[in-house]
Amino acid sequence: MPKKVDHEARRQEISEALWRIASTRGLDGASLRDVAAEAGISLGRLQHYFRTKDEMLVFALRHINRLAAARIRERIESLDREPTPRAVLRACLSGMLPLDDKSRIGLLVGAAYYARAVHDPTLRAEAQQGIPQLRAFFADQLRRAAERGELPPGRATEDEAMLLISAVDGLATYVLLGVHEPQDALRMLDLQLAHLFGDAGEEREGAERAGGRQGAGR
Amino acid sequence: MPKKVDHEARRQEISEALWRIASTRGLDGASLRDVAAEAGISLGRLQHYFRTKDEMLVFALRHINRLAAARIRERIESLDREPTPRAVLRACLSGMLPLDDKSRIGLLVGAAYYARAVHDPTLRAEAQQGIPQLRAFFADQLRRAAERGELPPGRATEDEAMLLISAVDGLATYVLLGVHEPQDALRMLDLQLAHLFGDAGEEREGAERAGGRQGAGR
Repeated sequence: MPKKVDHEARRQEISEALWRIASTRGLDGASLRDVAAEAGISLGRLQHYFRTKDEMLVFALRHINRLAAARIRERIESLDREPTPRAVLRACLSGMLPLDDKSRIGLLVGAAYYARAVHDPTLRAEAQQGIPQLRAFFADQLRRAAERGELPPGRATEDEAMLLISAVDGLATYVLLGVHEPQDALRMLDLQLAHLFGDAGEEREGAERAGGRQGAGR
Repeated sequence: MPKKVDHEARRQEISEALWRIASTRGLDGASLRDVAAEAGISLGRLQHYFRTKDEMLVFALRHINRLAAARIRERIESLDREPTPRAVLRACLSGMLPLDDKSRIGLLVGAAYYARAVHDPTLRAEAQQGIPQLRAFFADQLRRAAERGELPPGRATEDEAMLLISAVDGLATYVLLGVHEPQDALRMLDLQLAHLFGDAGEEREGAERAGGRQGAGR
C-alpha cells in the first residue's frame, strides 16, 4: 500500500476511535491519550498522525461529514431514475435525522463538536464552509422544483433552504434529548416540506382526520 | 435574611460562576474546583451547596431557564395590552434567538449542557420536562389564533408548535456557529411564522399566489 494511502487509513482508524468516545461519553475531557488507548496504539504513535487535539478533531469531523454525504448520495441513488427535486430534498433531510445507528452516532459526535465549536474558530470554520454549500444545493433543488411548476417561484430561495436545514437540525436535537421519537421527527419534516411546497391544505385535512390522536398527545 | 433564602442565593451565585465558564470556554473538563475558583470560594464551601457536578449542573440549568422565561414574559408584557397569539409566539420565539448578550450567553451555556445531556439521563430529564411544556403553551396560542380566525384550524397542532421550536433552535445554532447573523435568523423566523399563518405568498411575491389556502389564512 502506498505510504500516503496508509497514512490516510491510519488517520481514519484514529478518527473512528475518537467517534466511539464521542458517541458513548462525549469529548468532555477526552485527551489524546484516551483516544490512543481506544485506538489500541501508543500516544507517540497517535502524535505521528495528529500533533494536536484540534488537528485530530478537524480531520475526524471532515471524515464523518464525508461518510454522511456518501450515505445521502446512496439514498438519492436508491430513488427513482429521475427523482423529483422534492424527493431529493426529502432524502437529504431525512438522512440528517437519527433514524438509524449510523446517523445517530454521527449526530452524537456532532453534538460533542458543537459544544467545542462555539468557542473554537478552527472547528467553527468547518460549519461555515459546509452549511452554505448544503444551503446552496437545497436552494438549487428548490429552483428546479419551481421550474417544474411544483413550487411557487418566490419560495425558491436560500432562506427557505436554510429554514429546512434549521428545522431538521432542531428536530434531530430533540430526538437526541429524548423529547420525541425519530418517527415523530420524520413526520414533522414532512409537515415542513408540505408547508413549503404549498400543499399544507392536504396535510390539514389529514391532521383533522387524525384529530383524536393530536388531542390524546397533549 | 432567612437561612433558606441565603442558601438559594449562594447557589445562584455559584450557578452564575458556572455560566461564565460555560459561556467563555465551555464545560469541557471544567471541575467543581474550577467553578469554586471562578466563584471566589473554596472547594469545600462549594460542596456545602452542591455535592456533585451533576447536582450543580441541573440547578444551574433550571436557574438559567427561569431567567430566560422571565425575560420572555417581560417581552410579552411589553407588547400591546391585548397582543394577538401570533405576537405572543413571535415574542417567545425571538427571545430564543441570540439577539442580545443575555440570550447569547444562555445559548452558549445551553450548548455546553446539550453535549453532556445526550449522554446523561439526569440532564436530559430537564429538556424532557421543559420542552413539552413550551410546546403545549405554543399549541395553545395556535388554538387561540384559530379561534380568532387568524390561523387555519388544522394548523393548531402540537406538531406545528414543535416545528416552530425546532426551527428556532436550528436557526440559533447556526448563529452561534457563525453561519449567519442574528438578524438573518430573525428574518427566517418571520418566514416560518408566515408559512404557518398562511401569508407567505403575500410576503414573498404578491397576492396572486397560494389561492384558497392564503385566503383561508387571512
